[in-house]
Amino acid sequence: MKIEILCTGDEILSGKTINTNHSFMARRLVENGFEVYWGTVVGDDRDSLVHAFEMASQRADAIIVNGGLGPTVDDLSQEVAAQTAGVELELNQGWLDRISEWYQSRGRVMPENNHKQAMLPAGSEFIDNPIGTACGFAIDINGARFFFTPGVPREMRRMLNEQIVPRLQNLRGYHLTTRVKRFHTFGIGESRADRLLDGIEEMALDGSVKLGFQSHYPQLETKLTLQGRSEQEIDNKLRPIETAMREKLGNFVIAEDNQTIEGSVLDALEDVKGCVSIMEMNTAGMIATRLMSDPDHVDRVKSSLVSWDPDVLSGFVGREAGQGTSTLHAGELAASILQEEGVTHALVVLTERKIKGNKDSSESSSIIHIVVADGLRRESRQAELPGSPDWIQTGSTELALDCLRRFLYGLPVQERIDFEQH
Amino acid sequence: MKIEILCTGDEILSGKTINTNHSFMARRLVENGFEVYWGTVVGDDRDSLVHAFEMASQRADAIIVNGGLGPTVDDLSQEVAAQTAGVELELNQGWLDRISEWYQSRGRVMPENNHKQAMLPAGSEFIDNPIGTACGFAIDINGARFFFTPGVPREMRRMLNEQIVPRLQNLRGYHLTTRVKRFHTFGIGESRADRLLDGIEEMALDGSVKLGFQSHYPQLETKLTLQGRSEQEIDNKLRPIETAMREKLGNFVIAEDNQTIEGSVLDALEDVKGCVSIMEMNTAGMIATRLMSDPDHVDRVKSSLVSWDPDVLSGFVGREAGQGTSTLHAGELAASILQEEGVTHALVVLTERKIKGNKDSSESSSIIHIVVADGLRRESRQAELPGSPDWIQTGSTELALDCLRRFLYGLPVQERIDFEQH
Repeated sequence: MKIEILCTGDEILSGKTINTNHSFMARRLVENGFEVYWGTVVGDDRDSLVHAFEMASQRADAIIVNGGLGPTVDDLSQEVAAQTAGVELELNQGWLDRISEWYQSRGRVMPENNHKQAMLPAGSEFIDNPIGTACGFAIDINGARFFFTPGVPREMRRMLNEQIVPRLQNLRGYHLTTRVKRFHTFGIGESRADRLLDGIEEMALDGSVKLGFQSHYPQLETKLTLQGRSEQEIDNKLRPIETAMREKLGNFVIAEDNQTIEGSVLDALEDVKGCVSIMEMNTAGMIATRLMSDPDHVDRVKSSLVSWDPDVLSGFVGREAGQGTSTLHAGELAASILQEEGVTHALVVLTERKIKGNKDSSESSSIIHIVVADGLRRESRQAELPGSPDWIQTGSTELALDCLRRFLYGLPVQERIDFEQH
Repeated sequence: MKIEILCTGDEILSGKTINTNHSFMARRLVENGFEVYWGTVVGDDRDSLVHAFEMASQRADAIIVNGGLGPTVDDLSQEVAAQTAGVELELNQGWLDRISEWYQSRGRVMPENNHKQAMLPAGSEFIDNPIGTACGFAIDINGARFFFTPGVPREMRRMLNEQIVPRLQNLRGYHLTTRVKRFHTFGIGESRADRLLDGIEEMALDGSVKLGFQSHYPQLETKLTLQGRSEQEIDNKLRPIETAMREKLGNFVIAEDNQTIEGSVLDALEDVKGCVSIMEMNTAGMIATRLMSDPDHVDRVKSSLVSWDPDVLSGFVGREAGQGTSTLHAGELAASILQEEGVTHALVVLTERKIKGNKDSSESSSIIHIVVADGLRRESRQAELPGSPDWIQTGSTELALDCLRRFLYGLPVQERIDFEQH
């Protein structure tokens, strides 16, 4: 079954708005085992819409039209759908009542032009929108099935997931449920992950498991897409595979699904009612930003001291200046933090200021010294990271968070990552 | 003249990659006074490409094809271009030499399959790519002019700006130069900016000046698009208008064009060889992130202390705990920073922890106390910002940066902004 995604609207066509609706719809369709065959973008223009609907009906079996269901005169989707299907527009009284009530419940009177949103092509199938005033609908045009969805992303997303995908499943004649299981890793590149996971897809003998990678430097996201006829079938299929994946990816897995590395760190601190203080150099305070954005965890991070200068950091804990940047000095600072700040954990990141080569060159690099400590243990990590200054800042931040995660979960803090030199 | 943007590639069609190439190309074309009439997305599939080229040639005068010029077998653009134009592929020896040299200069041998990138349809016009191995080309298909561009964004952008837009100007038969002048403001919403700038478009009597807004909370970007037959004509037109805009937007202008508010702050500190130390509460260290990312300005920011707890901040400068969050206490902390840290400037941000209403509700709010001081002056600002916790963090960060900017440029630190309550 060939599917076309037809996005309408001057803002999308003229580039003022980036077409994230296409990519969201396409990804969701592909995850559900459908073939996205074509993508079209047209403006709010009657002739263009008529031509686009005609063309789409000739090449695709199902078309998802996005946008043009609003109350204003340039919203033309219902009208053009009726015109190309050769029917009239009819009032859907049920939907008109719903919109009126929606306005009434907010103490407002429905503007006259919202009436237009309840006019649907005769014979079309109504599709509910529980969170907006633009309902969807489906209708056959030249033998192809058209599904009309609102342009507002959260309304479109909900309608696609809850209403359109099940209808496409029916149209295709068989039901497939899809689940995406995600692993977030830090420290291994895509090609190494690909080698490590060799044979994973084959664990499902029916070919219904697909592996995919998406790199968000410095993290790598590994997606496992599973299909089955029921949730339970997928559960059974997933169990041995996810166990194998955790084993193969090992200590590099920083989080799964919607969890994040900072969430993993904060959860571990919550478990022991711990509290960390941080010193960060050449990370632009990004460790603080990652660990201190969520007011649910105010008691888990006491402070972060941010500076370009190791002497400034030393001064705040009453240490002598002139110790420079070394793993040894980072350890001393961590000891001072534990002693003076009354926290259970300390994280210190020092970076050698001298950058090799041209600072804008991708061939420069920095040496990072990280120490994590609590009252019993002190672990250190040294790494040389290559790249531009902002890549080094991003990489140092991630490496520091990962050292803290490994320390808290009892994993080895020293384990070579693909991004470091030598 | 109608232009179609035709993007090719399975990654775009399937939503794995968001189609930012379309939006970039469309915006640039619209800025140059062209009409983007249609957008198409197809996969790396021969039949789809043939069909797409045929359709596009019938409805548009010029088509920009993006992608499919790589060295691998699924890159089909040259082949399909030749097929639909009814010509053969021919070796472009000049380009093959350029690619070979490119590899040689890096001490590598050109892989055999790159040879394919020098095969162009007979009779096509070569278009240079100074930064990649995929050259562009132009050819007529069914009377429409097709321009082929590489999918790599930075290669496409440069080719579009330097090579395609001038060719489209020639095709259209008249030259229009476009310039976009941008003003970044903080503190005024779009509707207020719109009112303030009433009459600006009319200052150009020929209707060649357009005003547009793009909101990036908490900043607002105001774009002025000017067209003219020469750079000098645009210079003359722009001069009185930009003066008027600066006057109308007043102290709210934080930066122009590619400048940022943090850049404005750092430039002002560079001018006086000043250095600031910061204390930030409930901003998740984002002031540090904004001011401490650029190694060119290491001497302008000494440190930032980040904490959820005002007592922790007090402790670092030897002040008593228990002073809470007030403008008065923020002032005392600023005085201590100046005294103890040997800096020329201090910035302190305290936030009242008690959040009104449900913390996830958009009706919650926080009271922010900001103090900026140097050896001679101390200025304070208090504001109540509504919104979710992350909006308040973002808003506090921006407000603090703006207070510092205003202090450094001698502007009033206390000036009501649209986002604050009462």
